[in-house]
Amino acid sequence: MHQPDARDAPPSIRLLPGHDRRVKAGHPWAFSNEITMTPAAKALPPGGLVRLEGDDGARHGVWHFNPHTLIAARRLSRDPDAAIGADWLRERVAGALALRERLYATPFYRLVHAEADGLPGLVIDRYGDALAVQANTAGMELITPALLDALGGLLAPRVVVARNDAAVRALEGLPQEVRPLLGDAAAAEPVRAEEGGLGFAVDLLGGQKTGWFFDQRENRDRVSRLSAGATVLDAFCHTGGFGLRCAAAGASRVVLLDRSAHALDLAARTAAENGLAARTETRRAEALDELERMAGAGERFDVVVADPPAFAKSRRDQPVALKGYGKLARLAAALVAPGGFLFLASCSHHVAPGDFADASIWGIGRARREGRILFQGGAGPDHPVHPMLPESAYLKAMLFQLA
Amino acid sequence: MHQPDARDAPPSIRLLPGHDRRVKAGHPWAFSNEITMTPAAKALPPGGLVRLEGDDGARHGVWHFNPHTLIAARRLSRDPDAAIGADWLRERVAGALALRERLYATPFYRLVHAEADGLPGLVIDRYGDALAVQANTAGMELITPALLDALGGLLAPRVVVARNDAAVRALEGLPQEVRPLLGDAAAAEPVRAEEGGLGFAVDLLGGQKTGWFFDQRENRDRVSRLSAGATVLDAFCHTGGFGLRCAAAGASRVVLLDRSAHALDLAARTAAENGLAARTETRRAEALDELERMAGAGERFDVVVADPPAFAKSRRDQPVALKGYGKLARLAAALVAPGGFLFLASCSHHVAPGDFADASIWGIGRARREGRILFQGGAGPDHPVHPMLPESAYLKAMLFQLA
Repeated sequence: MHQPDARDAPPSIRLLPGHDRRVKAGHPWAFSNEITMTPAAKALPPGGLVRLEGDDGARHGVWHFNPHTLIAARRLSRDPDAAIGADWLRERVAGALALRERLYATPFYRLVHAEADGLPGLVIDRYGDALAVQANTAGMELITPALLDALGGLLAPRVVVARNDAAVRALEGLPQEVRPLLGDAAAAEPVRAEEGGLGFAVDLLGGQKTGWFFDQRENRDRVSRLSAGATVLDAFCHTGGFGLRCAAAGASRVVLLDRSAHALDLAARTAAENGLAARTETRRAEALDELERMAGAGERFDVVVADPPAFAKSRRDQPVALKGYGKLARLAAALVAPGGFLFLASCSHHVAPGDFADASIWGIGRARREGRILFQGGAGPDHPVHPMLPESAYLKAMLFQLA
Repeated sequence: MHQPDARDAPPSIRLLPGHDRRVKAGHPWAFSNEITMTPAAKALPPGGLVRLEGDDGARHGVWHFNPHTLIAARRLSRDPDAAIGADWLRERVAGALALRERLYATPFYRLVHAEADGLPGLVIDRYGDALAVQANTAGMELITPALLDALGGLLAPRVVVARNDAAVRALEGLPQEVRPLLGDAAAAEPVRAEEGGLGFAVDLLGGQKTGWFFDQRENRDRVSRLSAGATVLDAFCHTGGFGLRCAAAGASRVVLLDRSAHALDLAARTAAENGLAARTETRRAEALDELERMAGAGERFDVVVADPPAFAKSRRDQPVALKGYGKLARLAAALVAPGGFLFLASCSHHVAPGDFADASIWGIGRARREGRILFQGGAGPDHPVHPMLPESAYLKAMLFQLA
């Protein structure tokens, strides 16, 4: 394959003898303790290209390599002769874009979801002509300028910001930073996420993650569809995605609960701009405390949503996190009116779907409520999952009806 | 609670000492080897009401009881004084109906889904003013006349048929039979399932199960949304649900493949009645053989659906079934054009979601294709799951995009 900008052939590194099983099976990662770390390999620049070979000489394609981190190699192509240049990058982004354009009628989605889109460590969220980019590996950090070119050619964005404040960047020796890459994100024209006929105000630079959670879109569809005429409590509401979708679907009253004044300000702004303010109330409080207080006060809602930030930041946190999800389910279930609906979610990578389900069911039982499961699932299809990385399906969601 | 038709208090039966753990935890079944089978208990009529008590005298509510089967007791109410009469039955069906009316704009759905709707062993599918009823326990068989009254009061159906030909009825000592309970199912006005703007011809008396598979509705939404301008292969198509939804969504060409001439006749009829015949081709063949032949002939489709009947009829069949799902995934993947979509499903109760995923991913790998998972899930919310019966979530579905 001729590529005008193809560099010299990348250096080769070798897997240790007897450590090629996963790579041969198609896993897109090789760990540092699976690689023969010669002085030459250790001296390679973080994020450069390498050809990965087996101890048997088998050629496993071209990878991003960082000798200083645990997930040392991430596969870019199975073809050992692939030219990983501008053409390759544009093709990968174009493939990711084509899928989203088939999935969604409007340009608001996760455009690139890392390994599953063949771009390991890279996340891009699209808000119309504004993009938020997370480069979570040294390899993706290095090719960010080329990425900007590719995005420019495909989408001609008005604004691109780097949301390089994910904790995982530290593992790659990368700094935390949020900065504009293109255009002026703080300019007069604010960024919006359009969904369900609403325009949500998004803070690209200062919001959580990239400012909006596209992963819950299908779940917001699901919950809002149940909300005509209903009273709704949206706990851990962030900028009000669930609650305001319910309001737009005809909920009679929506309480938006969060600890962040900034997130609630954006929610209130969205409510006002979409004519939903009269049926919407924002309430600033620690959600768990407020849920307990409301249950004690006998408050009841037809629909209760509890979508907290990750309780488990590491595998070590798992037992405590599961206790937390059980407690949250108990408090939230107590607030659901008879026949009403309870939506619970966890975005903790380190909590398995079955364990989250068990904790949720335990909590509902502890609230002395009976429930049936209407839905159990995860993120929408703009967050595809690499078949060898099932653990990357971090979002767990459950929808119950309670008797 | 006063009920004009409440019978005398049901007899009591006891759990064996040390066998109340599951029931106390809220499980809706008690097995025959957990119950003190006194001569009096053994002599109780199959399907009658009992009060279930623990060896400690704890009262666990009112249950359907059949002394001659493994799942001997199925809970109807946790309240030991509940009057299980006409009012109770109407209330349960009304609750199930209220959920579906909130979920769907048109009256085509699974109306009652057994334990999860508080009506153990009972399944009802609704096709507008036609209903198909499966009474899979002696208890539900006994109250079928009362059920007809309840359904009459709530829905005034034109036609009700008993689709009592499920194999599980034999475990309860019940005969296999398909018969009209109300109205004339073979009358001039044929039964239709409306979905996605189409009217599907349904054979209530002679079709598979109740004649239509409501459980795949959301999955048909998902797949058809990807099908504008696409070529589509629907293998094991039955009456053409997936393929014809894709045709209606703008697929350029749809091949409907099944071994049943009768099912294909209904599919062709639906295609003709909805103006889709010109882009639709029915092909009668053993699907696995035909997939192999087509792959050999180099045929390719933008969307391939493979939704076979259950490969595992019992736990013993599981290994063979998983081999079968792997083979099917391999054959189907080989027919997917680059960038195209592959939808795979299993309705085998005895195959776990993780095992089905592994078999599917294995098959795709064997076809030397790479894929990303866009969706992994099951049946729609009109098939709720009882929290203590996760194994009742029989439907496994996976949607891939292949490179």
